[in-house]
Amino acid sequence: MRLATLRRGESTIAAVAAGGRWVPLGWRDVGALLADPDGPATARAAAGPGATLEGADLAAVVPHPSKIVCCGHNYAGHIREMGRELPAHPTLFTKFADTLTGPADTVTVPDWAADLDWEAELAVVVGAPLRRADRAEAAAAIAGYTAANDLSVRSWQRHTGQWLPGKAFDATTPLGPVLVTPDELDPAAGLALTCRVDGELVQSGDTADLVFDAPALLAYVSAFTRLSPGDVVLTGTPAGVGAGRTPPRFLTDGDVVEVELTGVGLLTTPIRIRKTGTEHRECA
Amino acid sequence: MRLATLRRGESTIAAVAAGGRWVPLGWRDVGALLADPDGPATARAAAGPGATLEGADLAAVVPHPSKIVCCGHNYAGHIREMGRELPAHPTLFTKFADTLTGPADTVTVPDWAADLDWEAELAVVVGAPLRRADRAEAAAAIAGYTAANDLSVRSWQRHTGQWLPGKAFDATTPLGPVLVTPDELDPAAGLALTCRVDGELVQSGDTADLVFDAPALLAYVSAFTRLSPGDVVLTGTPAGVGAGRTPPRFLTDGDVVEVELTGVGLLTTPIRIRKTGTEHRECA
Repeated sequence: MRLATLRRGESTIAAVAAGGRWVPLGWRDVGALLADPDGPATARAAAGPGATLEGADLAAVVPHPSKIVCCGHNYAGHIREMGRELPAHPTLFTKFADTLTGPADTVTVPDWAADLDWEAELAVVVGAPLRRADRAEAAAAIAGYTAANDLSVRSWQRHTGQWLPGKAFDATTPLGPVLVTPDELDPAAGLALTCRVDGELVQSGDTADLVFDAPALLAYVSAFTRLSPGDVVLTGTPAGVGAGRTPPRFLTDGDVVEVELTGVGLLTTPIRIRKTGTEHRECA
Repeated sequence: MRLATLRRGESTIAAVAAGGRWVPLGWRDVGALLADPDGPATARAAAGPGATLEGADLAAVVPHPSKIVCCGHNYAGHIREMGRELPAHPTLFTKFADTLTGPADTVTVPDWAADLDWEAELAVVVGAPLRRADRAEAAAAIAGYTAANDLSVRSWQRHTGQWLPGKAFDATTPLGPVLVTPDELDPAAGLALTCRVDGELVQSGDTADLVFDAPALLAYVSAFTRLSPGDVVLTGTPAGVGAGRTPPRFLTDGDVVEVELTGVGLLTTPIRIRKTGTEHRECA
């Protein structure tokens, strides 16, 4: 089953792919559908063969999660090639719901935050309440998978040792285009995850290479905080980010970034660097 | 004006101190009151002389903020005594609304997260929407001040370089007891902030010693993410945490931690370490 959140004027509506089109359902978005015990079964009953995304105006597939937890340093090949040991614990930080944006939306940052970098990611959406879950419980609570671009303002990420500011600029994390349920998609079996900038391949990973896979991440997070239907966990990015190049490469005004996850689809993100003519007024 | 969120069975209600008692208002909590453009004026019209907190069953003064942003390394005296330079940027991390708890609630952690440490803090509550605000705009948007105990599970805080897990155990951050509006309280003028463990003074700070004061923190945060009425910013803790001692000292089952902020009041937190008889099942 494939779910999406469609924009309808100022509002949104959850929809399920069926018979080559998107069938609207009675919830404002996929998160609200997942939070209703009747939601997934109702969607399942309406679901059918895949629908085209052409012409659909999509919001972030889950636009208002109560929690977004993100993992860094999570692709084994990249960690090993950097000469580091595989970590014992996942490196976790958060985003806000305001950080999310739609899968075809333009991302705009001001020119005092212009060192914007790409990070293609597999995202996991929670489908059932989880608290101090083991791996099997966590796996059973996965509503589905989607893709994200954890676009990061590197200078603000490095203002201090805590990454939050550079990871939480409003409307900088495309999430979608659709949610695909686990019966149709298994990241542990290996899904190609790529990022292209203006058509040039810059990241090419495989979700089978995750150090902490989706069930492991959900179990770890649920040890300290409860997870609820519609919560989102980003699983980290493979090698190839701009900050890792010599010299570093950042996105420029007019670039188009494409993140593609096999079985899920494409995030297409035009980048705009807004000229402010001012310094950031921080603490002014 | 002093506002509180009172528990009423399974629900809560916002209240204002007036005539020596707490007068219930038509909002479910202080956050909802602040989010309503009519809320503060309605409360102000009903407000009067201070009320006793005896017998009041208090929830976290803002129990459901959309954003909680916390600052570390923010007391100048402590930074200097550690031989470090004053930071150029605030060190920020987040908590979830689920992390909060009431000002007299018991805090319970499992025995695999027992290295629990105290952190007395001034907390700021946002009263108006803020986006890319300068210092004056940020100052004008402060709804008021309260106190917090940023109780931290040090081992989980140090699992990786990102502090989130140790800072976000559910129901471990007492917030309250009341919100005091800026016309009655000025942290920049210096408020005594103390922490006691079983009566022993362990922290004694002064809010005038903040490197990044409340307007500076709100302005900085608002540069990357919008703030809304009811959002909460914790401003950091002064010297004297248990992890800074030689040897380190952590809280034990039965300890009572008291955080007191002049003009705001007292957080009294009994500590319970729950025996689980198991290892943490992380990633099992």
